[in-house]
Amino acid sequence: MTLALDAAAQDLLFREAHTANTFTDEPVTEEQLRAVYDLIKFAPTAFNQSPLRVVLVQSEEARERLTGLMAEGNQAKTRTAPVVAILAADNEFTEELPTLFPHFPQAKDVFFAERPVREQSAALNATLQAGYFILGVRAAGLAAGPMTGFDHAAVQKEFLDGDHTPLMIVNIGKPGADAFYPRSPRLSYEQAVTTV
Amino acid sequence: MTLALDAAAQDLLFREAHTANTFTDEPVTEEQLRAVYDLIKFAPTAFNQSPLRVVLVQSEEARERLTGLMAEGNQAKTRTAPVVAILAADNEFTEELPTLFPHFPQAKDVFFAERPVREQSAALNATLQAGYFILGVRAAGLAAGPMTGFDHAAVQKEFLDGDHTPLMIVNIGKPGADAFYPRSPRLSYEQAVTTV
Repeated sequence: MTLALDAAAQDLLFREAHTANTFTDEPVTEEQLRAVYDLIKFAPTAFNQSPLRVVLVQSEEARERLTGLMAEGNQAKTRTAPVVAILAADNEFTEELPTLFPHFPQAKDVFFAERPVREQSAALNATLQAGYFILGVRAAGLAAGPMTGFDHAAVQKEFLDGDHTPLMIVNIGKPGADAFYPRSPRLSYEQAVTTV
Repeated sequence: MTLALDAAAQDLLFREAHTANTFTDEPVTEEQLRAVYDLIKFAPTAFNQSPLRVVLVQSEEARERLTGLMAEGNQAKTRTAPVVAILAADNEFTEELPTLFPHFPQAKDVFFAERPVREQSAALNATLQAGYFILGVRAAGLAAGPMTGFDHAAVQKEFLDGDHTPLMIVNIGKPGADAFYPRSPRLSYEQAVTTV
């Protein structure tokens, strides 16, 4: 075995997992969502800045409002997924930074005094965490359906605020009928990796 | 068990894993790096665009050149890590898109005709893949040390080209003496997740 991760876990997280486009009506519990978060929160970000914020859209009213802001091809699944999560970057993550990075509390002022620097760092690190989150959903035995096709400005206005930038929206649940497209090709190691 | 992923895998990828700041001189093999890539390539990106490109810095000459472009606090570990990987976004990922997304080969022209749109999509999706990559390194039983403190423009000029934007640099190997800082606090579920 070249990898230390057992084969069942490789399959669960990567090889057998697919982006789901339909879902059963089996509920996703708060216990499951907490377990996902409490697992993925440990994966690394720069200065432990942890800028990912998640808005779970669960009320009927909120879900209808969000569905109207999705690209047409994403509307049906957003309407029917058991849980819909808006993943966002907190551009003012520095408010928590002295707590999150206690051995260098000056980091907030030394590195992140300028808003554009905060925005760039929040986008990068919250997106890294979005990758962890998608795998965390799979770790719970659930399927994730990440989507970037939505009106970003309107989602920010309706569900977030000026300090939070939406990155993607993820449908979460048990895959339903015809949930998966066939696996598309991937780039080979030689296509993606070079050595100098 | 709330999670489907077994506890040993949870520990390996998230709970017991830490960012490493020192490394032993035990080599990382190409077989290991291939296994990491061949696992994480399956995790999702928008339109399966797969924009992550990896440059492995292995020759003495290249490593010295890169070390000089790192922030001071990152130089010693970049000099001594068994493998140093530059993770970059390919802003011209659309060249491969008809192969990667064969059921809608027009996507290249319909959605990504403009370079700024390609750049934004490549940054988001390659950063997602960087999250998968870091967990993939851990899946190989290795420690990852991701770093954003380097001269981005110079790294692009020296190791990439105008179509490839560096995102982060990751040291890879077995953790050495005093490799880990103590675990810093994480945000609670209540701090990071809200429900509407």
